[in-house]
Amino acid sequence: MHPRLTTTRAEATVFTMVLTQGPVTRVEIARRSGLSSAAVTKAARPFIEAGYLEELEATERTAPGAGRPASPLTIRANREFFAGVKITDDELIGVITDLRAQPLVSAHRRLTTTSPEGVVEALAELVADLRSDDPAYDERCHWLGLAVSGDVDKALGLVRYSPFLGWRKVPLARLAGEATGLNVTVENDVRSLTVAEQWFGDGVGASSFALVTVGAGIGCGLVANDRVVAGSHGVAGEIGHIPVGGEEPECHCGGRGCVEAIAGTAPIVAAVRAATGDASLTIDAAIDVAHAGNTAAREVFARAGHAIGLGIAAMANLFGPERIIVTGDVQGLAAYDLFEEQINRSFTSQAFGAAADCRLLLRPRTFEQWARGAAAVAIQTLFSSQER
Amino acid sequence: MHPRLTTTRAEATVFTMVLTQGPVTRVEIARRSGLSSAAVTKAARPFIEAGYLEELEATERTAPGAGRPASPLTIRANREFFAGVKITDDELIGVITDLRAQPLVSAHRRLTTTSPEGVVEALAELVADLRSDDPAYDERCHWLGLAVSGDVDKALGLVRYSPFLGWRKVPLARLAGEATGLNVTVENDVRSLTVAEQWFGDGVGASSFALVTVGAGIGCGLVANDRVVAGSHGVAGEIGHIPVGGEEPECHCGGRGCVEAIAGTAPIVAAVRAATGDASLTIDAAIDVAHAGNTAAREVFARAGHAIGLGIAAMANLFGPERIIVTGDVQGLAAYDLFEEQINRSFTSQAFGAAADCRLLLRPRTFEQWARGAAAVAIQTLFSSQER
Ligand SMILES: [Zn+2]
Ligand SMILES: [Zn+2]
Repeated sequence: MHPRLTTTRAEATVFTMVLTQGPVTRVEIARRSGLSSAAVTKAARPFIEAGYLEELEATERTAPGAGRPASPLTIRANREFFAGVKITDDELIGVITDLRAQPLVSAHRRLTTTSPEGVVEALAELVADLRSDDPAYDERCHWLGLAVSGDVDKALGLVRYSPFLGWRKVPLARLAGEATGLNVTVENDVRSLTVAEQWFGDGVGASSFALVTVGAGIGCGLVANDRVVAGSHGVAGEIGHIPVGGEEPECHCGGRGCVEAIAGTAPIVAAVRAATGDASLTIDAAIDVAHAGNTAAREVFARAGHAIGLGIAAMANLFGPERIIVTGDVQGLAAYDLFEEQINRSFTSQAFGAAADCRLLLRPRTFEQWARGAAAVAIQTLFSSQER
Repeated sequence: MHPRLTTTRAEATVFTMVLTQGPVTRVEIARRSGLSSAAVTKAARPFIEAGYLEELEATERTAPGAGRPASPLTIRANREFFAGVKITDDELIGVITDLRAQPLVSAHRRLTTTSPEGVVEALAELVADLRSDDPAYDERCHWLGLAVSGDVDKALGLVRYSPFLGWRKVPLARLAGEATGLNVTVENDVRSLTVAEQWFGDGVGASSFALVTVGAGIGCGLVANDRVVAGSHGVAGEIGHIPVGGEEPECHCGGRGCVEAIAGTAPIVAAVRAATGDASLTIDAAIDVAHAGNTAAREVFARAGHAIGLGIAAMANLFGPERIIVTGDVQGLAAYDLFEEQINRSFTSQAFGAAADCRLLLRPRTFEQWARGAAAVAIQTLFSSQER
């Protein structure tokens, strides 16, 4: 049996519980899921037979005199492998992960074109490279997850609009499936990272949480009632365009006072250039100048932190997440110490009542981890009953 | 059989589908729910026997030669009645509704105290009054829904904090249950109205939508993935405290630039007083002055509409609802024509990309309809498998 053939909700429930919360005993699965012990045992059996789950040796009795000790079920993480690729406008970042979305090998590939055909060709080469790393990957990797910024319709495998790539209505799942021979999922990149946190990261155990990404843009993934919020019009999590700045400045989105128009990489560079008089400054140099103690440059980052903190507060006031994970691309993280104090202060001052109790967790995430997010979407699609 | 004794998910699915989407044939229920026809028939039977559902006469054949025409199932709305009460700081508004949350009779009662004991006593009198209106209400009304502004824990039946009432940790479900002899649900008032829209109003058929209430405060109820967003720290939907005004003005919440600090009743009255030099103006008089054409007063309302439109855009950018229902208390609605144009214009200018496609539906809702929301929560609690 291949688990994609699981047909009952009980099977999906039991398997995902062991996958995301294991090792865990059958008794505990029954308690958490509301299934009967018999139903849990029945649902687990085909996964054990197919080598996806195994019993750990019991190490302790559940209670004195409680009879045969319970053997926890655990995942055999190397039973199947998943490819995940984050597509940016100039680079592909790919990983092979195990069943728990742990990256085992990674590789990068520069893009010389952003045409869908060119990207898919490079993608197929990258995936072939990654899979050639170990015969087991070639043999037991059937799924490829892709993460793309922009408006993505996961159900259709369609990139509706990706401004960075200049794509409109690209049927990426079909194209990549034909080129790689794998089953392909396509999801928005921030939502992909959110799925990785939900099943395998800091979101485990939280029925609601938010992931905020700080970098060139400011994004947000939301999980409500145990499910990722996808947005009905292809838009969700656009925390970057909350108008915290009043009437100024104008934003590329057509709005005014957006978080991203203050705290995105471009406006930060522009403001530090203006403050220092050095019109050729890069973001890395701007960060260096601020780290070296330049007051005007530090002010720019503090103002950005203020805007981010207000945006996070607005999101928390509306949405009430249990936890908020703050992450970013490499540059966003290099600057994080310049933002951090002001993010926390502005969040706390604007959070409504008990929303201020929501913890902000700073979690650096590399591009490999974004690629891992793509793999996590494939894993969740394969095993979650919600996705059927 | 009383439906609160329904134990299977299939029973809850079938009953709620007929309740919220009926009349509907068994075949169509099977198609929409994924249940087998046999399972639908089995699940419906006890509800028919107990008089909650009945078969309509078939009026047309589903297809030529398709054999016996399908008889749609429909709800017998008068099989059971529900009491719903909205509690404000100076008044109780109560209704008796049928199974579809249609109000059949309503009554108001002034409050002379906001002490929990005093309110519960007045509540019991009001409910007894309402039920005495028809012997059927007395006989077949077993549930009372209460709607209270503030931080409410529905699962515990606890009002954790209600600033308007000055309540902290009031076990309202227990107190009201003892006083009325009914089963009691307690929910936040905006979320109650959201539930009424979700099951019986403009939210039917939308897996996500938002309800925005404009009045003394600015509130918001959210439904994501078919479920009301409750918020983990007792906070959700606080659209009124999104900082759209930049650094000004200060808000009663401790934040700055909040929607509510610009567009709530109090700041509008203050601004119109300042503009007209009449320090005794009420909100009704302020609305009259603006309706009479006073430019400065009209500016105040337009500025409020701008702040509301930006708040709605921020919510839509984050959350991506299919629809947004805009409503208000009576005063909010009397002023709505003064806000409307600017709400639409500012929403459109700040909505990110396709989020601008989300329709704003203006829906006047009286206090009776808020009380109906309280009854809808009781109905949903009784019949939804999600609530078990
Ligand atoms: Zn913007
Ligand atoms: Zn406020």
